[in-house]
Parts: sequence; structure tokens; C-alpha cells
Amino acid sequence: MLAKNEAKFINSLKLKKNRDQEGLFVAEGVKIVNDLLHSGMKVKTIYSSRNFQLSIFNYHIDVIRIKESELKRISSLNSPNEVLAVCEIPHYNLDHAILGKQLSLVLDTIQDPGNLGTIIRIADWFGIESIICSPETVEVYNPKVIQATMGSISRVKVHYTELPAFMEAQQKQTKRGEDFAVYGAALDGENLYETDLKAKGFVVIGNESRGISSDLLPFITHKICIPSFSLPLTGLQAGISSAESLNAAIATAVICSEFRRRLK
Amino acid sequence: MLAKNEAKFINSLKLKKNRDQEGLFVAEGVKIVNDLLHSGMKVKTIYSSRNFQLSIFNYHIDVIRIKESELKRISSLNSPNEVLAVCEIPHYNLDHAILGKQLSLVLDTIQDPGNLGTIIRIADWFGIESIICSPETVEVYNPKVIQATMGSISRVKVHYTELPAFMEAQQKQTKRGEDFAVYGAALDGENLYETDLKAKGFVVIGNESRGISSDLLPFITHKICIPSFSLPLTGLQAGISSAESLNAAIATAVICSEFRRRLK
Repeated sequence: MLAKNEAKFINSLKLKKNRDQEGLFVAEGVKIVNDLLHSGMKVKTIYSSRNFQLSIFNYHIDVIRIKESELKRISSLNSPNEVLAVCEIPHYNLDHAILGKQLSLVLDTIQDPGNLGTIIRIADWFGIESIICSPETVEVYNPKVIQATMGSISRVKVHYTELPAFMEAQQKQTKRGEDFAVYGAALDGENLYETDLKAKGFVVIGNESRGISSDLLPFITHKICIPSFSLPLTGLQAGISSAESLNAAIATAVICSEFRRRLK
Repeated sequence: MLAKNEAKFINSLKLKKNRDQEGLFVAEGVKIVNDLLHSGMKVKTIYSSRNFQLSIFNYHIDVIRIKESELKRISSLNSPNEVLAVCEIPHYNLDHAILGKQLSLVLDTIQDPGNLGTIIRIADWFGIESIICSPETVEVYNPKVIQATMGSISRVKVHYTELPAFMEAQQKQTKRGEDFAVYGAALDGENLYETDLKAKGFVVIGNESRGISSDLLPFITHKICIPSFSLPLTGLQAGISSAESLNAAIATAVICSEFRRRLK
């Protein structure tokens, strides 16, 4: 049974201001909830329309059995998927020393929730531990982002901070003689496939329509682009540009793939 | 001014059965409509809430000036974007001889409209001319697909056909001694980065949850997978798989990028 004020509380978490105030977010679906249970994230309460089994490590978590109709009333999904969990928003420290030893993503105002979720899933696949987002990037605990991560939210650390200040601090931390590599995806960049890619550094992905913001550009040490193999246009089409860009998440995937391919 | 029965007709094209019957589809937004005007596609009528300029090559096309409120009534978008065009559905021939000389994508029941649109945009970027879809793949003239292509629909040929019969016919066409290369994205495939990739052939992308269907598997000559660099899990997470898959469009992008990188 789902108490009326409980349903109201869970629904209130659909708004960012309430998530911020309560320090809680909602995740749905068997796969994502199981991934969260096996991660360092703290799951507070689980609501399930079926018999949801907890492992021995999670016996302390409340599992509340509810009806499917009740799940529908608190779900953000068109087709609710058995289980909904209320989780604590984790707090990660930005550790410049650790970041200096890894490859990380920097998101400069990615606004589409599906793009952010997909980028987190890509980071997970390619073993990227941390994503640093501008404050204007869509909030990661937005239900649409959480669902698009397909569980990868439990394995990738997502930070929000002012990017120019972050870059300055990171640059200062870098020891003399060490590389401070910041790759920026830009249409006028060097051919990705021919650029010398380091195993450590930052890949900056700009906003879906405006690209990388001007206050971040001075920190870019290597502009890179994914070359287009678009067919030459003829006749009426000549002079008209063909494929103009790749989606931000698609570009992220191609770039991460190329960095990781070089590792071996 | 938008006549009432005109509005009704345009709205009827939101349904596949009406698109099929009329041989028409709807595209929206300045960028996409301009791309269509410069392609081989036939634009029938343009409805615009602003002063839409046609080039000298397109003076025969009707441009109907309508109010923003009228555009809203016929648009599929949350925020209508100035212009809506009614276009003829093109008919492409499946030419096995031409396909035998190119790299093409084969989509085995991609169901998400956003995924199909994004895959068409990826094909355009990487110079892939043809996409062959199973009949169960989401219809390309679905407004959500059209919008997700960002105009690439005007440059990539999308075919629908029974895939096993298509593969059989293509195989027969291939001359003795020539390669018939069919790459299938599969989790148990060979490392993409280490596979010998031909410049011509087919890349099969399977359904978002079920992968490549069993009746298509016999035609796959090379199973390939994008290796995961996901971090080794420890403690509570040990034994639990980490990132389980990449989204179908993301996998397509990484694979196309790797094929094209090898071209040079």
C-alpha cells in the first residue's frame, strides 16, 4: 500500500528544487535499481509492484510492495517497470590530483536530458570515471537523464562546477613538464584520427547548438574534429553544405572510442 | 490563411496508413526544409509563418503564408519552427550491383524513432548512401524520425525489405572471388579495432534489446564488438556486469567511424 502523502512526496521529487532540498532522486526499472544497489550509492526506499528480491548486503533497505496502479501514479515513465527507488544524491569531491591521472569528460552546457544520459552511458563503457559539467548543463538527477543512463549513473561520477575556474585550478595542479591536455571538439579542429591523443586529459564537449563557450576556449590545448566523409554534392545541391554536425552524444562516443583504441 | 480541410489533411499525415495511402510525408523547420529543397526529393507545398524565400530552382512550389497559431495546429513539434513542408515519399530501387560497391547499413528492427533518425544522420556524416531496414523497423517518414535526421533524410536512401531475402539476393550477385562482407554488431564479436574491415560491405545493427535476429545470423561473415573499457568492479559490485551495452545509434557511430578511419 502506498500512503497518499508518500505518493505526493515521491512526485515532488520530479522537480529539481525539491530534489536539491531533500538531497534525493528517483530511479526506475529493475536494471537501474539493481545497478544502484550494487554501487556506492545509497538507496533509501524501494517501491515494487512485484516481489523484489534484495541481496544479503541490502537487507536494511525498506521494500514497499505496491499495486501497479500505485506505481503508475508515482512513475515518470510511460510504461512503469516494476520498481522505483528513492536514492540519496551523492556528494563527490573534485580531486585535481586524481583527475590529472585520468581521461575525463567536460560538458559545456549540454541541455538535452537524453544526450546527458547517453554520454554517461558512453563514459561508463569506455572506462571514464568522471564527468565535469558546467552549472548550466541539465541536472543529472532529472528522471529523463537517470533513465537514459541505463544504470551507468551508479558508476560514473558527475560533478557540476564553473568550468573556467575548474580548468584554472587543474592547470595549476599540473606539475611542470607534465602535459595538460584539453581536447575540444570543434568543427575547425584537427582530424581526430591524426591527432596525437594522450591517455590522460580532458575532452570538452560543447553545447548542442553553440559549441564550446568563449570563456573556455583559452584552456583548449588541442582542437579536434571528426572528419566528415559526406558525399560530394552535385547539381542543385552544390555549394550547400551536407551533413553539418553530429549529435553531441554521437561525437562523444566517436572521440572516446578513438582515445581508447590507442591505449593498447 | 490555412483552410480547415487543409489543416485536417496535414494532420492526417501524422498516421502511417495515411502517409502510405497519399505517398506524402511532413517535414518541419528551416534547416530540414531547405535541405529537402536542395535534394532530389519533391517538396509539394510549404506552409510558413514567416517570409520563406525559395531559390530560383524552386519557384514552382506553392508557399502558403500562415499564422503562427495555424502552424501550431498542424505541427508535430512542441515548438514549431517557422516552416512545414509536405513532401512526396521517394521510391528508391534496391540495386544490388551498386550496393556491392559501397559500405551500407542494415537495420534489423530498430524501433526507436530517435535512434533511426540519429543513425541516418550518422550515415550522412560518414558518407553512407544506403540504409536497408527490416519491415519491422520504425517507419522513416514518422515525424519523430524526420526531425531527428536534422535534414540528412534528404541525402540518405532508406529502403525497407525482408532482410534474409535481400541478403540472399546480394550474396548471389557477388561475383566469385569477390568479398561478400557482412559485419554484425554482437557482444560476442571480435574486437572492432583489430578486425580486418573492408571498404565495401554491410554493417548489420540489431534490435535495441534483442540484437540481430536468428534468421539473419547465417549471413553474418564477421561478428564485431566494440570492446568495453569499463572499470573492473570490486567489493559489492564484483561479479556484477558493469556497462552492459551501448545504445544502437552510439554503436553505429563508433563502428562507422572505425570503417572510415581505415579508408585513408
